[in-house]
Amino acid sequence: MTNIKDIGEQGLLERLQRFCPPEIIGDDAAVLVTEPTQCLVVTTDMLVDGVHFSDITTSPEDAGWRATAANLSDLAAMGATPLGITVGLGLPGDLSVSWVESLYQGMTECLQQYHTPIVGGDIVRSPITSLSITAFGQVYPNRIIRRSTAQVGDAIVVTGVHGASHAGLQLLLDPKIGKDLTTEEKNALIKAHQRPQPRLDVLPHLWKIFASQLPIPVSGMDSSDGLADAVLQICRASGVGAVLESAQIPRPKAFDHWLTEEQALKYALYGGEDFELVLCLPPDLANTLVQSLDQGAVIIGSITSDSNVSLLHQNVKIPDQVLTLSQGFQHFSQ
Amino acid sequence: MTNIKDIGEQGLLERLQRFCPPEIIGDDAAVLVTEPTQCLVVTTDMLVDGVHFSDITTSPEDAGWRATAANLSDLAAMGATPLGITVGLGLPGDLSVSWVESLYQGMTECLQQYHTPIVGGDIVRSPITSLSITAFGQVYPNRIIRRSTAQVGDAIVVTGVHGASHAGLQLLLDPKIGKDLTTEEKNALIKAHQRPQPRLDVLPHLWKIFASQLPIPVSGMDSSDGLADAVLQICRASGVGAVLESAQIPRPKAFDHWLTEEQALKYALYGGEDFELVLCLPPDLANTLVQSLDQGAVIIGSITSDSNVSLLHQNVKIPDQVLTLSQGFQHFSQ
Repeated sequence: MTNIKDIGEQGLLERLQRFCPPEIIGDDAAVLVTEPTQCLVVTTDMLVDGVHFSDITTSPEDAGWRATAANLSDLAAMGATPLGITVGLGLPGDLSVSWVESLYQGMTECLQQYHTPIVGGDIVRSPITSLSITAFGQVYPNRIIRRSTAQVGDAIVVTGVHGASHAGLQLLLDPKIGKDLTTEEKNALIKAHQRPQPRLDVLPHLWKIFASQLPIPVSGMDSSDGLADAVLQICRASGVGAVLESAQIPRPKAFDHWLTEEQALKYALYGGEDFELVLCLPPDLANTLVQSLDQGAVIIGSITSDSNVSLLHQNVKIPDQVLTLSQGFQHFSQ
Repeated sequence: MTNIKDIGEQGLLERLQRFCPPEIIGDDAAVLVTEPTQCLVVTTDMLVDGVHFSDITTSPEDAGWRATAANLSDLAAMGATPLGITVGLGLPGDLSVSWVESLYQGMTECLQQYHTPIVGGDIVRSPITSLSITAFGQVYPNRIIRRSTAQVGDAIVVTGVHGASHAGLQLLLDPKIGKDLTTEEKNALIKAHQRPQPRLDVLPHLWKIFASQLPIPVSGMDSSDGLADAVLQICRASGVGAVLESAQIPRPKAFDHWLTEEQALKYALYGGEDFELVLCLPPDLANTLVQSLDQGAVIIGSITSDSNVSLLHQNVKIPDQVLTLSQGFQHFSQ
């Protein structure tokens, strides 16, 4: 097995060049032509071995896919289409070259769906494997989706099921659980964790629905840190509240005969990493969007002038079910 | 002393927000308005504690400055002016909050010289401190400076002295050396290491000289990995050779009474991290540029149809002084 220290940085770079467009590599920086009337959108993620990915649950291909999908999801959440990504890699010298090639393979598999290139990067020695991806995209100014513009009365749409990725992770960590699941169900949940899809496909639906209504009256973000977190962040940024109908929150069908209602709801609200979009828009147009998407998209609640996010159970407000960020993911406190 | 784990990711993010423009933070990604007729230029660097910086030689302010300067230097080397940077940070929980604030202080001090904002980032838990910066800039298509377009007969200009940064690092690592230097000389060399200046100031000179000659007939890169590396990379990318006159390679004056000629030349050619520009352009215009810059800029040689880069000593070619990449910096082989 060839390790990185056997071939050095130059040797590794040469092996990885096949994942990058030849016209872009080999200079101090990459040059890209952008659409002149669009804005530039930029997002970045840092991932560390043992914290964000692990060989126990995630192959290098899947780690590459997931990291890429997370960044593309941030672009989708702004309404932006991707232009390219850069990749910063810190690698121990005794890591195998094939691990790194597999990581790049996973990244490019995710990117190729959107014809998006890896346009640059940096590879350095590090005691621990770490990966930093910066994605950039473009968006017409009147199509930007912000967190801060949710309006009282807006319907809240989620573009798909929640809790699947977290369930998949649990199944990977402890294969003994999930005896009540079929192999097909297990594999689907595990795939939701390993190969999440950024919802860039939602954007053309929005552009079509709002072709004559610009700027688009849509606010939102992605649910990468959990559905509860997304709704809370939107409400905080917009100075509004929300009510969610618990029964409306879409979850994988497998949850029905595997988890209690309470567990299923916890996975869906706080599991995270489903990378769906959480969008707030006028109710009639929300219905149009849900019909247009036709793949698990649902209206889960509405924006209120309240200062809380409350969870209703069959239209009854349960006093202790006010959502808080504290059940969400805090990276340093764990 | 407050550590990161005491205030968590959210607490740290709140403390760092003062370093970022308020209109940009708080969404999934940053939105930037670019000049419609310019191209986007992107570059990224990854830095790891103990490999690229260390508390022994580099304060967090200086680590922040240096990392930022390196990225801005890559933009300058493409002819691009900066738009913004993103910052990915992997941090151990027991690192002090003030360390991170000092890092950001150093980054913003460097950026403020060019009115360039930090537009986004990601902060995650990591066993080892690591820093990934991605810088964005823009350039008119006919002003792009590439490595691959050097022409036989071009003069090779360096925009300033070489070897200072490496000398500064040596002085920091071993304060006992450099007894023959004055305090002022020592401080200047150390500052060259801790606070290198990206040569973005060179670009307006080029634009003025080549106002009527577009696309600009200039190729080049920065000397971040050493002057020898820069000349060799340009020659390899352009399919040309070069001759350099060793006496013309500008070094700090302090070297004259501190190092042997051989040592001084080694520092200047292979030291690295001086972040000057190495530019190839027609000889008459190279003279105009050198006069226009008037701060240590010198013609050090010329581009040939040879396949080697040779070093001349008072116009005599020394057979064993053919420059090679192998004396340059290889990140994994050390």
